[in-house]
Amino acid sequence: MSGKPEIVIINPNTTASMTDRIRAVAAETAGDRLDLTVLNPDHGPASIEGFYDEAMSMAGLLEVIGAHPQADGFIIACFDDTGLDAARCLTAAPVIGIGEAAYHMASMIANKFGVVTTLSRSVPALEHNLMRYGLAARCSGVRASDIPVLELEAGNSDAMARINTEVSQAIAVDKAEAIVLGCAGMSDLQAQLAREHQVPVLEGISCAVRLIESMIALGLENSKTGGYAWPRKKSSS
Amino acid sequence: MSGKPEIVIINPNTTASMTDRIRAVAAETAGDRLDLTVLNPDHGPASIEGFYDEAMSMAGLLEVIGAHPQADGFIIACFDDTGLDAARCLTAAPVIGIGEAAYHMASMIANKFGVVTTLSRSVPALEHNLMRYGLAARCSGVRASDIPVLELEAGNSDAMARINTEVSQAIAVDKAEAIVLGCAGMSDLQAQLAREHQVPVLEGISCAVRLIESMIALGLENSKTGGYAWPRKKSSS
Amino acid sequence: MSGKPEIVIINPNTTASMTDRIRAVAAETAGDRLDLTVLNPDHGPASIEGFYDEAMSMAGLLEVIGAHPQADGFIIACFDDTGLDAARCLTAAPVIGIGEAAYHMASMIANKFGVVTTLSRSVPALEHNLMRYGLAARCSGVRASDIPVLELEAGNSDAMARINTEVSQAIAVDKAEAIVLGCAGMSDLQAQLAREHQVPVLEGISCAVRLIESMIALGLENSKTGGYAWPRKKSSS
Amino acid sequence: MSGKPEIVIINPNTTASMTDRIRAVAAETAGDRLDLTVLNPDHGPASIEGFYDEAMSMAGLLEVIGAHPQADGFIIACFDDTGLDAARCLTAAPVIGIGEAAYHMASMIANKFGVVTTLSRSVPALEHNLMRYGLAARCSGVRASDIPVLELEAGNSDAMARINTEVSQAIAVDKAEAIVLGCAGMSDLQAQLAREHQVPVLEGISCAVRLIESMIALGLENSKTGGYAWPRKKSSS
Amino acid sequence: MSGKPEIVIINPNTTASMTDRIRAVAAETAGDRLDLTVLNPDHGPASIEGFYDEAMSMAGLLEVIGAHPQADGFIIACFDDTGLDAARCLTAAPVIGIGEAAYHMASMIANKFGVVTTLSRSVPALEHNLMRYGLAARCSGVRASDIPVLELEAGNSDAMARINTEVSQAIAVDKAEAIVLGCAGMSDLQAQLAREHQVPVLEGISCAVRLIESMIALGLENSKTGGYAWPRKKSSS
Amino acid sequence: MSGKPEIVIINPNTTASMTDRIRAVAAETAGDRLDLTVLNPDHGPASIEGFYDEAMSMAGLLEVIGAHPQADGFIIACFDDTGLDAARCLTAAPVIGIGEAAYHMASMIANKFGVVTTLSRSVPALEHNLMRYGLAARCSGVRASDIPVLELEAGNSDAMARINTEVSQAIAVDKAEAIVLGCAGMSDLQAQLAREHQVPVLEGISCAVRLIESMIALGLENSKTGGYAWPRKKSSS
Repeated sequence: MSGKPEIVIINPNTTASMTDRIRAVAAETAGDRLDLTVLNPDHGPASIEGFYDEAMSMAGLLEVIGAHPQADGFIIACFDDTGLDAARCLTAAPVIGIGEAAYHMASMIANKFGVVTTLSRSVPALEHNLMRYGLAARCSGVRASDIPVLELEAGNSDAMARINTEVSQAIAVDKAEAIVLGCAGMSDLQAQLAREHQVPVLEGISCAVRLIESMIALGLENSKTGGYAWPRKKSSS
Repeated sequence: MSGKPEIVIINPNTTASMTDRIRAVAAETAGDRLDLTVLNPDHGPASIEGFYDEAMSMAGLLEVIGAHPQADGFIIACFDDTGLDAARCLTAAPVIGIGEAAYHMASMIANKFGVVTTLSRSVPALEHNLMRYGLAARCSGVRASDIPVLELEAGNSDAMARINTEVSQAIAVDKAEAIVLGCAGMSDLQAQLAREHQVPVLEGISCAVRLIESMIALGLENSKTGGYAWPRKKSSS
Repeated sequence: MSGKPEIVIINPNTTASMTDRIRAVAAETAGDRLDLTVLNPDHGPASIEGFYDEAMSMAGLLEVIGAHPQADGFIIACFDDTGLDAARCLTAAPVIGIGEAAYHMASMIANKFGVVTTLSRSVPALEHNLMRYGLAARCSGVRASDIPVLELEAGNSDAMARINTEVSQAIAVDKAEAIVLGCAGMSDLQAQLAREHQVPVLEGISCAVRLIESMIALGLENSKTGGYAWPRKKSSS
Repeated sequence: MSGKPEIVIINPNTTASMTDRIRAVAAETAGDRLDLTVLNPDHGPASIEGFYDEAMSMAGLLEVIGAHPQADGFIIACFDDTGLDAARCLTAAPVIGIGEAAYHMASMIANKFGVVTTLSRSVPALEHNLMRYGLAARCSGVRASDIPVLELEAGNSDAMARINTEVSQAIAVDKAEAIVLGCAGMSDLQAQLAREHQVPVLEGISCAVRLIESMIALGLENSKTGGYAWPRKKSSS
Repeated sequence: MSGKPEIVIINPNTTASMTDRIRAVAAETAGDRLDLTVLNPDHGPASIEGFYDEAMSMAGLLEVIGAHPQADGFIIACFDDTGLDAARCLTAAPVIGIGEAAYHMASMIANKFGVVTTLSRSVPALEHNLMRYGLAARCSGVRASDIPVLELEAGNSDAMARINTEVSQAIAVDKAEAIVLGCAGMSDLQAQLAREHQVPVLEGISCAVRLIESMIALGLENSKTGGYAWPRKKSSS
Repeated sequence: MSGKPEIVIINPNTTASMTDRIRAVAAETAGDRLDLTVLNPDHGPASIEGFYDEAMSMAGLLEVIGAHPQADGFIIACFDDTGLDAARCLTAAPVIGIGEAAYHMASMIANKFGVVTTLSRSVPALEHNLMRYGLAARCSGVRASDIPVLELEAGNSDAMARINTEVSQAIAVDKAEAIVLGCAGMSDLQAQLAREHQVPVLEGISCAVRLIESMIALGLENSKTGGYAWPRKKSSS
């Protein structure tokens, strides 16, 4: 037993190399203050690109959460915040998505933030989330670089150029004052993009690690009145 | 082969008696014009009460859809329109949720409609949907009778009184001009409530059957540009 | 007496050739299931291009509706849904506008739909409607081809090119996932545009015919509580 | 020729006694600075109570406007701002509705204003206007006293009590900081209500007279680009 | 004592030459109907360019208002309506900002108005105001010419060209039907821009003078219930 | 030099006893991880109750910020987030308001949160902030207990009862799932209210301390593109 808060970070897709990258980014932020468990479900989609993958990864994600009843907090490490509301029903411990984490942080340092994500197919799902969180009016637009998630993972040489173009457009055309990187796989690009474009660039994993640590320290738990009510005892039992 | 459009109606929970009731309501609306298959997944939650059940029923629901590639249209027969966007990624055939169906129909006969559902726990999920569909401003409010879904199913004697109270309040206080019954299990109450309260009362199953028949006849298919893009080939393959 | 539902379709302008085209499109959708009466008022504007024409066509339109008390349903066959709310006060039978019909249908197959209409002068009226229906957030934008309604009618050779340009822009720039044709006179172009642009293209007449048939079959009537209250007996009488 | 700006004020219903009352209120505000013509159409509804009356009064209203091409400005003296957009197409001279006038004025002296109108049937039409003007978020709610317009006209003794109740509720429950009287026929009650409830109470006729005078003095004319474009030459001619 | 309403117009920055220009524009509108006092605080920023200057000018502005208890009305002559709500707490006399004045007037002659201001830095502050007033949906966009306020004052030769470009874009791209000049220093350009672009162009000073005169004549005072409550006696005293 | 991040917390009113209480709450959250400076301006209002006090406290607040150029982050310890945008212009170091901090945190553990503040006079200012932050749709309502700030400070015996009533109503009537305490002076009540009402109750000081610590650790700075642009060099210099 470490005495440190135990955080479970779930990559809701089954690609272990992406889980490894998430672990690396999270560990750098967590330092020795948190006890991190970073993992992915053993079944479900290899990447999450839009509504269908999101739906198919939910059961695996929720099983992982259910299997860690002792955790002090959870992070859903996919930018579309897969299953976030469902997860909050399953546990009193705080649960945060990396998309949500980056949006909230960005809205405290910029009047409007732009989001640059991978595929056009993912844009409507992110727009739904922004509307649900209330932050749609703070977002100058969600732009897709149309780089598949796993290609980004593979170090595609063209990727950086296409992302740079969308970041430039977000600033010049959409009047974004900060940029949120809309994919866990883009985390490595954060420093370079901030330097080149001279605006704050946020990646969600580190934002989420800091936020969940804060929420635990503040004793904040999911409300069990209303939509996240607990226990979810069945009416028939 | 019947020559009639083939509609697959999925009750996303695993309670067969509820599937039977959905079949009865749907069959009455479909007459002999449609070839109906009404079924439920063989795994997943026994009822859908809020975000968690919704998430846990998605895989089963999508498997059923995937297992019927020849269907001309699909209806998701749970009032929170479980997995609707995901389903539209999986098929070009039109897919409609019974909540969505009732909301659209209600907004063409009333300036504002009220929703009366079962549990308070389900209200935020319905509110999310209304916001996403754009129809939140047309809804005078979502009210919960706090009758569990399966208790309604069991013919609880108090249920009608509690539902009547919420319908009355929706009309008098919220200024609803029509009432949408917010649960597949409430379908049987439609005629009686309309008679007593003298406003249009809509239940979603019959609305959805008529709408899906219309969409098929019009040749309308899910857009495969953007959020429902197809085929969902993985970037890695 | 046919035994079939009787639908009265009103072209609210006085151009008979346009009424004929509306009749042709509606008849193809109605088949032998509906008894159609398609007509136009004998006084009022020759075409409806913006707020003024809309206002000047209302009396004629409502007279036609009042003259058919036996009808089971009404369709207002002008894309700005002329006098829709007024018509719903005048009758309990369902009334649907072709703009409204197309918007609702489009929002069930696409995350966002674009509208391509004729004149810039008409755009604000359509935007008002979208806001009122609640569907403004589902619309990626209303674009005008600046082709006058009757020129379209006359088979102007340039028209198709200009409409094609706006459709392309709606998809590429506005991220429309489906296109709604914003004028009754554009109905003939539906199939060709869908083929060329590879997204669903909706025209309102056929959508409205199917929807009104559905509403009648479902027994849905205009609410007579609130804004459409009936009878409209005068306070002084 | 007076040299004074000529204002045409149209009561869009045909009840001459109401026109007389409007004239009296307007004249008191106009003093000798404006040359007022206050009149009503010779055909159309006797009072305007909701969508249907509004639609049926449009042609008469627009004929009156068209018959005064020399006027410097127009006021539509019905609280639902009948035919406002259509009127702006017909003339370059500024046109203002008494509802609109009161809403804009109220939003400059209060964070939120409440509206108290006559009939429930009229509420949705007023809500549509507030949404269209952009001022819905500034309105704490539209309340109906359910006093018919012409009964108010007839000096019904119960009317004041019922209006007082709604004003009190608007302040206490809805947190209105000012009250807009939602009917031309309520103008006489303004001073008394302000005194009793100790909040600003606005009636639209005087607001509109002052605003139209201001607009004329500032040389403001209706935009003829976009929705109010002029001349409305028909495409076929 | 003049017997005329006394209006105090405050330029919230300390640049006397700008105060002089404001006086000239206001005087032309006021004629001999109003008794104008036009002044600026003796401390605070030399120009107001964004949130910081706005905040730093508030104390000076409010002192001026407090020093004129006899005034019948106040105008805040900076386009970001500096300290408007605070000023309304300090006095019962009506207070209007020149930005607010122009927005309300523009929304009565155009479906959508565009705003052309000086610096990009000022855009978010104007957007906040539009949202707060409820008129954001009536604005087609706020564009910055990136001409510093005092450079405009100095008669910079390039300024007109840059402003012309933004006005053209607002009309062609954003579909603005009228233009609001987003800086007190642009008032002189109003007539020329209106002539060149053939749409109504509004400058706020003259709009505000006419509106405050109207409000005084109508006896409208700031509500002292709610957010502007009076007297602001401290809870401790 | 401590090596720890240096946080400057400004109570924008001049009541030292309130500054002391803020210091106590902040110190408990900060532990020995942060180097706190908690202070108030030496001029300005004794408490901040609505728009006027807010405006009058801005200069003092911004002077304090300007006097600490070496600070790593700032907290504005008044629930209406006095001068937040202005402060972000003045420094690159992150600045957070205690209202904003609590709203963001609450929206990650509840579908909707209610706010319970002191005076009715303060409600519109809080509503403005919620709208500006984008989180208005996440708030179930702002309720006032009508207890003056300094009376709360003085340990008024009736205060708790009145606050309890508003919290109960927020949960039962407004369907709040969590409660945000809308005044720095209410911080001491947090634990007791959470226990009694069985929903999460958030107070802003501790939320802000954790958030600013997170932002500093993440290297997040205010955007200097757009509304917070830096340096604010005057155009004339």
